[in-house]
Amino acid sequence: MEKSALGDFACSIARTLDIVGEWWTLLVLRDLFAGISRFDELQQDLGVASNVLAARLKRLVEAGLVEREVAPEDARVRLYRLTAQGRELYPVLLSLMAWGDKWLAGPGRQPVLVVHRSCGEVTAAVPSCSVCAKPLALEDLEFRAGPGGSTRPGTAVIGAYLGRAGRAASA
Amino acid sequence: MEKSALGDFACSIARTLDIVGEWWTLLVLRDLFAGISRFDELQQDLGVASNVLAARLKRLVEAGLVEREVAPEDARVRLYRLTAQGRELYPVLLSLMAWGDKWLAGPGRQPVLVVHRSCGEVTAAVPSCSVCAKPLALEDLEFRAGPGGSTRPGTAVIGAYLGRAGRAASA
Repeated sequence: MEKSALGDFACSIARTLDIVGEWWTLLVLRDLFAGISRFDELQQDLGVASNVLAARLKRLVEAGLVEREVAPEDARVRLYRLTAQGRELYPVLLSLMAWGDKWLAGPGRQPVLVVHRSCGEVTAAVPSCSVCAKPLALEDLEFRAGPGGSTRPGTAVIGAYLGRAGRAASA
Repeated sequence: MEKSALGDFACSIARTLDIVGEWWTLLVLRDLFAGISRFDELQQDLGVASNVLAARLKRLVEAGLVEREVAPEDARVRLYRLTAQGRELYPVLLSLMAWGDKWLAGPGRQPVLVVHRSCGEVTAAVPSCSVCAKPLALEDLEFRAGPGGSTRPGTAVIGAYLGRAGRAASA
């Protein structure tokens, strides 16, 4: 199956991965979030081949997550910056980081500390409800077929499992 | 650079992607969360080649996210289930889903609805602080070098940007 088929799945996870699921893409976004904007610095930070980096950036620009601009101080230099759409991916990066800190780095060995300025504490992202703001525990979630659902490759079987999802996953 | 080098980066995002960043891995996890447990159903749902699916499952078992067991009703059938470590990745999937619902599916076209049972509403995950439980806005975050940080490929430049990250990304 072609990679681009992911984008045709009736699944918002698959469609998002079609854009950001490539090997280096989420790390390129990480660096853009940190404020790195020059191609050479991105390449130096990640140690990735320039053709791979160029391809990832091109895809992100085409998808509307990143914009390319000319550096004010040097017209030969291109800068890459996150758009509003790209910046809204920060919950994905925070949740990857929280999981890696807990399960792969171990207590007291986090590579980066995230400080929540308004409370002043080192934080880790936990998912909360966009409606009631309470924490979203897995066992308190129910997944239902939505208006954009479809039974086809990528979601050929899963529809029959919706409704019992929370129970099954947290059993 | 070898793919496995990602796991050596001093970055919890990169290390997590080293396990779950492969093309199909997060969708395999999605299906396990939904309660699909048989190899043939996973393959049928995703339309992925059996050798690719087998490799992804093997990696997830080795990494401790998935466990394989014998089906009680048929000793020839193997079932795959999430471990506690695997289940804790649900915030990653919820945040990928929320972004895709907003930016790729569009209003009223979500393939799947997530219902928060305790408030009864259709929800989308938003990141909140593990300490004070308030929402985590990007501009309210500060990233600092942590005890496990290192200046080497994957994080060769980014350390110098920490501390000004929130400002840069939300500017």
